[in-house]
Amino acid sequence: MFLAQVHVTYKPSILDPQAVAIKNAMHRLNFTTVDAVTQGKYFELTLDVDSAEQAQAQAEAICDQLLANPNMETYRYDVKELAQS
Amino acid sequence: MFLAQVHVTYKPSILDPQAVAIKNAMHRLNFTTVDAVTQGKYFELTLDVDSAEQAQAQAEAICDQLLANPNMETYRYDVKELAQS
Repeated sequence: MFLAQVHVTYKPSILDPQAVAIKNAMHRLNFTTVDAVTQGKYFELTLDVDSAEQAQAQAEAICDQLLANPNMETYRYDVKELAQS
Repeated sequence: MFLAQVHVTYKPSILDPQAVAIKNAMHRLNFTTVDAVTQGKYFELTLDVDSAEQAQAQAEAICDQLLANPNMETYRYDVKELAQS
């Protein structure tokens, strides 16, 4: 079993009003050290495959076909093997 | 400058219908190796502070006061120093 940790965020060229709103809220709460905010989606996929290569191929295909909007978003993923229980 | 990478996910005891729907969609797309799905929010905060300790304290306070709903969600964060540009 492998765990794929997937992060989907907007491309840098896409304006993200939600991130701006979050940053403004932080400043209103006196967290004035916050210089920039990026927000996105996070997924953990438990994959029943035999190798890290298969897990990476699955994660990439799933991101392309389901999790990320290729027009506006980018994704990255890390794969690690889960300890046998 | 420090970067705080924050992950906010539901507590394991909270039923997450959206994660169930995502898993079902994966199976419909023939990604049948997907055994479990967790989904959540991801934030990157650029913090203008002088030490990793300050960055961790800021990240923790921001999670407690703004980013996470303590009733239903848990959070974790990693802090790393950004290279001077």
